[in-house]
Amino acid sequence: MLSSLVAPLDYLGVAVFAITGALVASRKEMDLVGFVFLGVVTGVGGGTVRDMALGQTPVFWVKEPAYLLICVAASVLVFFAAHIPWSRLRVLIWLDAVGLALFAVLGAEKALPFGPVVAATMGVVTAVMGGMIRDILGGESPVILRREIYATAALLGAVVFLLATLALPRDFALLAGFLAGLGLRGLALRQGWSLPPFRARPGRRPDEVGL
Amino acid sequence: MLSSLVAPLDYLGVAVFAITGALVASRKEMDLVGFVFLGVVTGVGGGTVRDMALGQTPVFWVKEPAYLLICVAASVLVFFAAHIPWSRLRVLIWLDAVGLALFAVLGAEKALPFGPVVAATMGVVTAVMGGMIRDILGGESPVILRREIYATAALLGAVVFLLATLALPRDFALLAGFLAGLGLRGLALRQGWSLPPFRARPGRRPDEVGL
Amino acid sequence: MLSSLVAPLDYLGVAVFAITGALVASRKEMDLVGFVFLGVVTGVGGGTVRDMALGQTPVFWVKEPAYLLICVAASVLVFFAAHIPWSRLRVLIWLDAVGLALFAVLGAEKALPFGPVVAATMGVVTAVMGGMIRDILGGESPVILRREIYATAALLGAVVFLLATLALPRDFALLAGFLAGLGLRGLALRQGWSLPPFRARPGRRPDEVGL
Repeated sequence: MLSSLVAPLDYLGVAVFAITGALVASRKEMDLVGFVFLGVVTGVGGGTVRDMALGQTPVFWVKEPAYLLICVAASVLVFFAAHIPWSRLRVLIWLDAVGLALFAVLGAEKALPFGPVVAATMGVVTAVMGGMIRDILGGESPVILRREIYATAALLGAVVFLLATLALPRDFALLAGFLAGLGLRGLALRQGWSLPPFRARPGRRPDEVGL
Repeated sequence: MLSSLVAPLDYLGVAVFAITGALVASRKEMDLVGFVFLGVVTGVGGGTVRDMALGQTPVFWVKEPAYLLICVAASVLVFFAAHIPWSRLRVLIWLDAVGLALFAVLGAEKALPFGPVVAATMGVVTAVMGGMIRDILGGESPVILRREIYATAALLGAVVFLLATLALPRDFALLAGFLAGLGLRGLALRQGWSLPPFRARPGRRPDEVGL
Repeated sequence: MLSSLVAPLDYLGVAVFAITGALVASRKEMDLVGFVFLGVVTGVGGGTVRDMALGQTPVFWVKEPAYLLICVAASVLVFFAAHIPWSRLRVLIWLDAVGLALFAVLGAEKALPFGPVVAATMGVVTAVMGGMIRDILGGESPVILRREIYATAALLGAVVFLLATLALPRDFALLAGFLAGLGLRGLALRQGWSLPPFRARPGRRPDEVGL
């Protein structure tokens, strides 16, 4: 936690994910408390799972309730601003990309003492879990089921950060990983990129297969 | 834990939520083990997430397995009683309201040492999570998606409890918060109350929006 | 952890569940990263919840990242082997049965110091949770909703193990519990066994019931 960039980026990531949670709430026409609930859960969900698994409890938002207040503020803001005629889905998807890249490097940074395999895993877990909880609670198809480069971008960001820490100061490594993750996710969104899917035969139902 | 009411109310809340889990199992025509599984998960789910996040581990039902036995007993009871021609859904919804109000104050009470923001959050988390896990595993629409005053009632109960602790003995504060939460949830159910939802335009699909 | 069988069986259980996660990914035609993500989450999910609830953190795969590498290897293997014209669903269901029986005894073994009620519960939790997370994230109907002997087999395996520890050395008790759990699950699959379901009236919708 010596790095001067970690704390501000962490606040930014939480705020950005909280906004995406509130945007899902607006797509589902929830009320204000629904906005705040989904905003908080999305904003702090990934980091909560990370802290629980690492045993760094109480989790970060219990130690620093400012994270909760940021999520509440971001969600309330969306509730009153979402009437503006924009494309909420486009904003949601791009903010989600920013949050994904931020949390990939920050999750890996926090798990750095546990070695590179755990650090890369925690980067992906922190980046992906908040959005998954958001999608499941919000009744959207979980992002992993859509065939896009998503967890892959988080993994790239975490790995670039981990490699960069070998040569660069912490802050530059954070930026390098963040830009790599956001760059890949952004290009995938702009170009409609996806990895080759597995394709042989769609799954069958139990009654079509003798067990 | 000096309060004489905390432990009995906690057992009551766990039993009430276990019954709602078993009632969902009966609506889905599960077998006895399905009843017990959904009963246990619903009864202890919210408190488990709370304890994990606060770092109070092993979680409460590992320290006191009586909680598990209460859930098992409640679930078995429902399995053999649910043939009586009543409206399971009505019982489910009202018991859920009682459990919601109980866990809102008890969750806030347990997190009191961590300050009011965390305490209020933990009240809502404890009250809402068990029912959410129940609905997701039971294949019901998560309660947060229904446009009713639900998390709002938990938040009111927790906040009234927190304010009341400034002036009243712990037991009276617990009762005040419980009655406030149950009162709001009950009125919302009776009167069909809801908060004004966000309403601008339903969400669009990705292919309707240029990314 | 004196038992010589615990560690190898644990690696085996994690690998087997990772394969089932990857097989769900193949049924949904995900890409390689989707395979690995679902493989890892399914392989370590149940044990992660168990360790978090017991307060044995950092969780097992943070202490021993080899578990993660096993999941990655198993998932990559499935990605490249799943084109072979077999019935993925049949393999999935039988491997899931093996993993279920393994994790039921291993989960109970890990929670043994907390008493028999907690140990049996942790056996079921460890055995069932990984597959549930897999089904929810993979968009499949959660296994508990299918009317089959599933959690029941995990419970039997855990209970047989717990009883056997009273009379037999640890390794033999593990095998006895494993064989009991796998035997019941296997017979249920072969014979189409199920427990008597609750059956009175399917659940009604809120608007069909006056609240």
